[in-house]
Parts: sequence; structure tokens; C-alpha cells
Amino acid sequence: MNSPTICWQRGCVKLIDQTKLPNKCEYIICRDVKTLWKAIKVLSVRGAPAIGVAAGFGVLLGMKTFKGDDSKKFRKHIYKVSDYIATSRPTAVNLFNVLDRMKTVLARHMDLSVSQLKKILTDEALAIYEEDRRVCREMGKHGASLIKSGQSVMTVCNAGALATVDYGTALGVFYSAKESKKKFKVYACETRPLLQGARLTTWELLRAKIDTTLICDNMAASLMKKQQIDAIFTGADRIAMNGDSANKIGTYSLAVLAKHHRIPFYIVAPRSTFDRKIKTGRDIPIEERGREEVISFGNRPTAPKGVKVYNPAFDVTENKLITAIITEKGIIHAPNKLKVNQLFF
Amino acid sequence: MNSPTICWQRGCVKLIDQTKLPNKCEYIICRDVKTLWKAIKVLSVRGAPAIGVAAGFGVLLGMKTFKGDDSKKFRKHIYKVSDYIATSRPTAVNLFNVLDRMKTVLARHMDLSVSQLKKILTDEALAIYEEDRRVCREMGKHGASLIKSGQSVMTVCNAGALATVDYGTALGVFYSAKESKKKFKVYACETRPLLQGARLTTWELLRAKIDTTLICDNMAASLMKKQQIDAIFTGADRIAMNGDSANKIGTYSLAVLAKHHRIPFYIVAPRSTFDRKIKTGRDIPIEERGREEVISFGNRPTAPKGVKVYNPAFDVTENKLITAIITEKGIIHAPNKLKVNQLFF
Repeated sequence: MNSPTICWQRGCVKLIDQTKLPNKCEYIICRDVKTLWKAIKVLSVRGAPAIGVAAGFGVLLGMKTFKGDDSKKFRKHIYKVSDYIATSRPTAVNLFNVLDRMKTVLARHMDLSVSQLKKILTDEALAIYEEDRRVCREMGKHGASLIKSGQSVMTVCNAGALATVDYGTALGVFYSAKESKKKFKVYACETRPLLQGARLTTWELLRAKIDTTLICDNMAASLMKKQQIDAIFTGADRIAMNGDSANKIGTYSLAVLAKHHRIPFYIVAPRSTFDRKIKTGRDIPIEERGREEVISFGNRPTAPKGVKVYNPAFDVTENKLITAIITEKGIIHAPNKLKVNQLFF
Repeated sequence: MNSPTICWQRGCVKLIDQTKLPNKCEYIICRDVKTLWKAIKVLSVRGAPAIGVAAGFGVLLGMKTFKGDDSKKFRKHIYKVSDYIATSRPTAVNLFNVLDRMKTVLARHMDLSVSQLKKILTDEALAIYEEDRRVCREMGKHGASLIKSGQSVMTVCNAGALATVDYGTALGVFYSAKESKKKFKVYACETRPLLQGARLTTWELLRAKIDTTLICDNMAASLMKKQQIDAIFTGADRIAMNGDSANKIGTYSLAVLAKHHRIPFYIVAPRSTFDRKIKTGRDIPIEERGREEVISFGNRPTAPKGVKVYNPAFDVTENKLITAIITEKGIIHAPNKLKVNQLFF
């Protein structure tokens, strides 16, 4: 693989500036927590797993400015740093989960010195980083068993190396299939309005030398009708405990179209994407984003100023439209409440 | 209604420059056939019916440069003008149909003088113009009977006043419903890659004071699931003699999604859109357009240079997905070969 999307290097966080892709692959070196905060805020780093890893490293950056050996003051300092990082993307569940995990480590070791606490926080942040790498490869391996040589697959948005440390969820399946020498084609939906499919997914698939074709979102059905798609793989933003899955807007559309054309539809997501407090997709809140994303491109208007806009960032695909959910623990065929709950016991 | 999209005014063709919409509504005055040719070529005027009307007027512009009273030379001159206009959009069926119609008029009147021929050609071009206005209003009236107050409808691309003289096919249905005081909402799909929905449809619906909301194409399914869409109305580019309909890419996707959500799906098109040489949708050729439309916006790249692109301009919706086709002769419910053929006898 190429350089990771995000890593810890000589006491700094190094990450790909995704706002510059696909035109330039530039790195940002975050030497302090403020620079990292801004990188999350402006989407230089995005994708739920990658943001989680960034939050862990953010705590380490914040730790560097603490002077002295008063461990009570140190804990307070870390809580403050965590609260600050939490404001960078207020709706990202992975961000809060990782920050909770870092704080839990502190709470479990009330007896340690500042230097010992610094050591275990560093270990925890690096463990989160390594877990992402391992879990993505495990999902990739399970998912690759579903792709045969000669097939064509489709994906939407970016559930790839750029959304994780270095491998991806849905795109991790393609990398694993490629590693086992399978030959296949990928059709990437451009993913309006922010074009993550066009800008990010095609960029990283080409970098991995995978045969990739870009289409507009409204062309997917036409390809399915022509029997040119054998399976669809997407990531997930959040999964309810019955398997209903929220993901980037347009995912539900692909799932319905897949059902009509009898094409298997797979969600690829780690166990950490399941929200144990959410029973069904009806309870998943859907973020609505601003009109500017839809009515202009760059600074150029593409619609009349006065028009109303509906711009939901996500949609929910119910479990009956999902052929299987692929996690690091294996493949859940025809997901339902019972099977999803078994994942956690 | 506002000024027509295209009209014949004091010996010139006046048309809205659609390349400037939605930012400016400017008119082009074509005083000669070359200026009109260019307006068709660069899509200043587009939409099958509008291009047909433009072609008729183009013959009149070409006629102006003929000097003398030799009617044989005059015929030759008109054939030459027609051949030239035909090169402006090589795949537009309406363009050829109208030019054939103008030439047929000449052929039917071998005995007339140049000034008499000029008169009947002018009458024919104006008749084509008036027919478009009448036929659109007839379709509008039939279609409006399918919309109830309080409903929300959806459309794609631009099948409106801007694609015809001044009223539209699918959007003509909305104008007719509005004229009969019905209250309803329209959701306009932006229609990637060229954004005719965002740029043109929302512009003309707002001009007509119709409640209009713009969405990206991949958001349509989500609205249907939320039971916020009561019917879908689209135009057609070409219809086979069994009712299978080719239209802007994304139309087929909407038809499949409509079926899944049990929402009626209507095609609105005049009899002139039926291609009597084409039996089923399988025989309709689909134009594939260039990669630039998908990988860049303005001059700004939105995808890596090397990526492959699939960019079909149209797709075909089979008759079983079409609730009804609305023509100037009435509504064909559950269209099939028999019912479509009855339209012509």
C-alpha cells in the first residue's frame, strides 16, 4: 500500500489533505491540536474511521503542551483537550467513541504518574490506529470471497483507504480481491453533491491499479439493466441493531435498483459502526446540509438564486434490501435483529 | 406566459440563449441562417420540439438571400439551405422531420412562382410553430387531470417551455394544473452531467411562480420513500411503437424507483416523438457523450485525468414501467403495441 491517509510520525500527525484531491496529493503535518482540529473541520481528513483515529492522535498532540508532574492537573488538561477536539465535527459518532475510549483509559489508571499516563494514552491511540488497519483487512478478506474474476462491481461515495487509515471498508474488499489476483472492474458513482466518488474513490482505485470507470449517479440503473453489474458494495455511516443501514445519500437508491435487477447489495462496515442504542433505521437522524452544495459549483451558480433545495447527506436502507453485511467477524447474510445481536455476544 | 423560447419576429428568429441561464436571460436575434446554425450547434436552443421549430425558421432565413425569380434555382437554393441546417445537430430527429416537411411543401407546388413559394414556406414554418404551441397545451390539459391539489410531483431534465416554443411537454402539465388553480409542489432532479434540471427547469418553474425544490438525482429515492412524491412526469426523446421510451439519462432509474414505491410514472410527449420505424426500445440507439462532461466542471477538474468514463446521454424505460403516456390525443394507460398503433389510425 501507499502512505497511510493518517499516521503518527515523530510526535506529529501526518495526513493527506483530501480537499486538494484529485488534483494534488499533499500532506498536512499537524504539530499541535489546533491544526488537527482545523483539518477535521474543513474535511482535509474525513470518513468515520479516519476521524476516529485522528481524534486519538489529537489527544496525544494536546498532551505535548502539558508541563509538570501533577497527574490530577494532567487529567483535567486531557479532558479539556478532548472537549475541544469533540467540537470539530459535532455529529461524528466515531469521534466521540474514540475520545471516550481515551478518557476511559485515564479513569482506569488513577494511580499512575504523568509520564506513565502519557505512555498508556500513546499506546491506546496507536492501538486504535492498528485496530483500524487490522479490521479493514479482515472485512476485505471476507468480502473478497463474494467477488469472482471477470465480474463488475459498483460502489458509491468513498469507503476506501481515504476514509480509514490505509485500506478501507467497501474498497478494502476490492483491494483484497486484487491481492488475490482476481480480475474485475469497478464502476464508481460520482456521488453528488460533493463528488467523493469522482474525487476520492477513483483517485485511490487508480492508484491501486484497479480498472475503474466513473459514472454519474443517475447512470447506475442503466448499467444494471445492461447486466453489466454483478454486485454492489458500499460502506455505512451508522447501522441500527436490526441491520438497517444509514450511508451517503444515493445508497438507498442503489439498493432498490439492485433489488429490481436481482443484483446482490452488500454493506461493508466494522462492528464499531453498529449503534447499539438504535433499534431500527427509523430512529437514525438524517443530517440535512446547506443549499450551497447543490446550487453552485466552486463559486459558479448552477441554479437560480431563489430556488428551494432539499439536501439530505444520508439515507437509510432497510435490512430487507441488504443481501449481506460484511464485518470483521464475517458475513451476515440477510441481516436481522437476531443476527446483528449475535455479533455482540 | 412570458416571451416564447423561439419566435419569428420582423424577418428574424429571436431565441433565448439557454447557455446563459439561469444567470442571465438574454436573447439572440438571428438575422441569417449561419447565426441560427450556430445557436443550435452550441445549445443556445435545445429540446427536440424547439429545434424543429428553429429548423423551419432557418429555412426562412436562408430564403431571404435568394435573388431573382427562377423557381427551379429557388428550389435548389432551399435544398442547399436545408442540408446546411441539418448539419447543426446530426442526431436530432425533429430537425430532419421539419426540414423534410418544408421540402415536401416545395415538391407539392411545382407550378408556383418564387414569391408564391416564399409565401407557402413562411406559412408552413409558422404552422409548425403554432402546432407546437397547440399540441403542448393539449397535452398539458390531459396531464393536469392526473394532478390533485396538495400533491407533490417530480420531473427530470427540462421538458418545458425552454424545450418547446413556450409551454413544454412534462412541464406543460404543471402549467396547465397551475392555470386551473391547483396547488402542488414540484421536485426537480438536477440531471447530471449537464444540469438541465438545475439550470433550466427550476428557472422556468420559478418564473411561472410554481413551488419548486431542487434535488440531486441520487436524492429522488429518499423522497419517494418518505411518501413525499405522488407522481412523476417526464418528457421523451423518442418513443418506440410499443411505448418503450428513450429520454434523458436517469429517467429509467426514476421509473424503477417509482414502481418500487408504487408511484405513477408518466411520459408526456406529442405524437411526433413516436418513431414509427422503431418497434421496441431495444432498437433505439443510445448516444454516448464525451468524458469532459463528467470529469470537470467549467474548467475545473473533478476527477483524476486517467479515469475511464461511461456517459450515456439517454436511457430507455420499457412500457411495463410506464403508468401512462400523455399525448395531444389523450392519455394512453398501460401503453403497449396495440394502443400506440391506434394513435396513428
